[in-house]
Amino acid sequence: MARLVMKFGGTSVGDVARIRNVAAHVQREVEAGHEVAVVVSAMSGETNRLVGLTRDVAQLHDAREYDVVVSAGEQVSVGLLAMALQDMGVAARSWLGWQIAVQTSDMHSAARIEHIDAEKLNAQFAEGRVAVIAGFQGLSANGRVTTLGRGGSDTSAVAVAAAIGADRCDIYTDVDGVYTTDPRIVPAAQKLERISYEEMLEMASLGAKVLQTRSVELAMVHNVRLQVRSSFEAPDAPQAEDGIVGTLICDEDEIMEQEIVSGIAYARNEAKLTLLGVSDRPGMAAQIFGPLADAAVNVDMIVQNISADGQTTDVTFTVSQDELPRTLAVIKDLQATLGFDKVLETPDMAKISIVGIGMRSHAGVAQKMFQILAEKGINIHVISTSEIKVSVLVDADYTELAVRALHAAYGLDDERVAG
Amino acid sequence: MARLVMKFGGTSVGDVARIRNVAAHVQREVEAGHEVAVVVSAMSGETNRLVGLTRDVAQLHDAREYDVVVSAGEQVSVGLLAMALQDMGVAARSWLGWQIAVQTSDMHSAARIEHIDAEKLNAQFAEGRVAVIAGFQGLSANGRVTTLGRGGSDTSAVAVAAAIGADRCDIYTDVDGVYTTDPRIVPAAQKLERISYEEMLEMASLGAKVLQTRSVELAMVHNVRLQVRSSFEAPDAPQAEDGIVGTLICDEDEIMEQEIVSGIAYARNEAKLTLLGVSDRPGMAAQIFGPLADAAVNVDMIVQNISADGQTTDVTFTVSQDELPRTLAVIKDLQATLGFDKVLETPDMAKISIVGIGMRSHAGVAQKMFQILAEKGINIHVISTSEIKVSVLVDADYTELAVRALHAAYGLDDERVAG
Repeated sequence: MARLVMKFGGTSVGDVARIRNVAAHVQREVEAGHEVAVVVSAMSGETNRLVGLTRDVAQLHDAREYDVVVSAGEQVSVGLLAMALQDMGVAARSWLGWQIAVQTSDMHSAARIEHIDAEKLNAQFAEGRVAVIAGFQGLSANGRVTTLGRGGSDTSAVAVAAAIGADRCDIYTDVDGVYTTDPRIVPAAQKLERISYEEMLEMASLGAKVLQTRSVELAMVHNVRLQVRSSFEAPDAPQAEDGIVGTLICDEDEIMEQEIVSGIAYARNEAKLTLLGVSDRPGMAAQIFGPLADAAVNVDMIVQNISADGQTTDVTFTVSQDELPRTLAVIKDLQATLGFDKVLETPDMAKISIVGIGMRSHAGVAQKMFQILAEKGINIHVISTSEIKVSVLVDADYTELAVRALHAAYGLDDERVAG
Repeated sequence: MARLVMKFGGTSVGDVARIRNVAAHVQREVEAGHEVAVVVSAMSGETNRLVGLTRDVAQLHDAREYDVVVSAGEQVSVGLLAMALQDMGVAARSWLGWQIAVQTSDMHSAARIEHIDAEKLNAQFAEGRVAVIAGFQGLSANGRVTTLGRGGSDTSAVAVAAAIGADRCDIYTDVDGVYTTDPRIVPAAQKLERISYEEMLEMASLGAKVLQTRSVELAMVHNVRLQVRSSFEAPDAPQAEDGIVGTLICDEDEIMEQEIVSGIAYARNEAKLTLLGVSDRPGMAAQIFGPLADAAVNVDMIVQNISADGQTTDVTFTVSQDELPRTLAVIKDLQATLGFDKVLETPDMAKISIVGIGMRSHAGVAQKMFQILAEKGINIHVISTSEIKVSVLVDADYTELAVRALHAAYGLDDERVAG
């Protein structure tokens, strides 16, 4: 017997037939003898409808009232799922954020979970009842309804799993696992059997949007084993003995054979900016990036070369293309203060990254990447590295070519037991 | 300065424009210096949509989960109304049933309010903030969400008014008050300025469906002054000095000139049943009406004459026409036990009632009714009386004729200061 958290997103509970399908997945685990907590999102489209209503009522609205309105979506889906389970003969009850309680900060509409009381949930398990928990919502210290921000149900699921000491948290989604890269670009992409938290964080934040980044961070901190698996699979399909049919995201100690490169990630819609002739003095970077942060511009890669003349230097950084106009507005305001000569902007860039924990103990991984891109005639604009990844910025037109070439070069096209 | 409860139903908050209109009504009272609590229903159609979802998921469902699902409707409308008020510069916050808390019995989907904590609401008033309260929902002793049954928001409003000691509870609805009879039948029907709780109860339960009966009972018990007024009136229309623009439902002591007959009520779709030759022995009535009550048949009028032969008697009673097949099924099962000869059923009857607290101190009121109906050639099938009303059962075809004749005969057609 294991204790499981099963999480289903909005598409999985999008209509009554799908809710019944979710109930059948839960029933399978209950019949296998497991204690189950289910975390669900609002029915697909419902959160957007509610958000639309709040916008129609008032352009600027109180985030506390926004949370009251939008959290109604999960309230509906937990009630319906509990009913569907009961209808199949599975004992179940719904839990709203305030009932458990899921205690959060009071940063409304982007609250962080601070504590989850496990007591009531544990009592449910003792009575053999499935706990159907509303994702995305919580309770602030002063008794108001909070929400975690879009996609927060993944985080709710991991936090519940940590609180009740679950053996695993299964995230049911529209893909059957995490792949070595996007299969739409590389049909030979392989499903990973296991991937470490650190690698998943690099993959997720680089655009492989299977899981909310915060949920992976939380899983890493609390060492919650996370599985990404498909909700479209038939509930009565044969199950693996260890319960792993998708991709397990876990501590690297659980991964025997650590690949040098586990996956190739990419992010399009990047824009590059270069400030030419910035005077090279202490605090200069803070003077540039402070105002950008204040304007909520999310700066990604930053490169600054040594000063050739000892007086001025060039600073290059990337932002999401959507944020380019806002970024330029901030930068132009700074020109007088910083006294740089000129701003060069290059839109339509892509960031290509190789990710792998094995990289830490292997030399020459980055060099191989540069060589392969050079062989394909792809120019590298910016390079940025961390312990377990190397990212390069290239013209967006080369995205597919670069991803395919790297995927093949690091041996990811081969049929193999991944992880 | 007064303390007011304002209640708005689903039609009044049916879309964003109407929610803003409600906010304007509230703003008017706040600007007049009053402390205001607003009780709202779900946006019209929303509760039906949610109920439909529960039916689609499971035919037989847990009423506790049903309550979780359907109470989401009011959660949305309170959040939106609080936002609309803030947008107009009126300080406001939403309150869900569990936040106040509105403590109820655990009879899910038909819970009764047991207690409302006034402490948090009073603190709101002290801070000059409007309390926007979700109607229809409450919290059971074991922390589950409950609902009061359809139309329960009227009851919520009255209970809140009693708890916070409100000077008045204004029910905004789609009519501008309580009339001496249905204006669709008698165009000369007058709007009543005041009506006693007792009269309103007789009018409401007899088919003048302006207010939920339970809310009037509760108002009577706690002596909450209730006003029925129109939500379609322009928010900036001139207001009466005493705030009464519709009909005030109050203690009879507040009504100076007590009319002998305040109104004429009617209910169509009644069916009459007569059991012929029931053996006349003690306990016979219980043997008939016990099984009907068990089958949830709502029996209205009951007439039993004295036994002519000392052995058998005839029993006549009325039920709603919709319940006729169910009633007949129960009665036929009883024939063997009770040994009556025959059942006569007469569908398509109407109950016509005259209601007035002045009746208690005036003789001949019923006699006048019988005489007027006789003059019009209307046959009376059954008569039933209480202290403040006389009801007769007639063929439904005569409904309009009877109501018009009685309305005129009791002087209700005249232009007058009612109440």
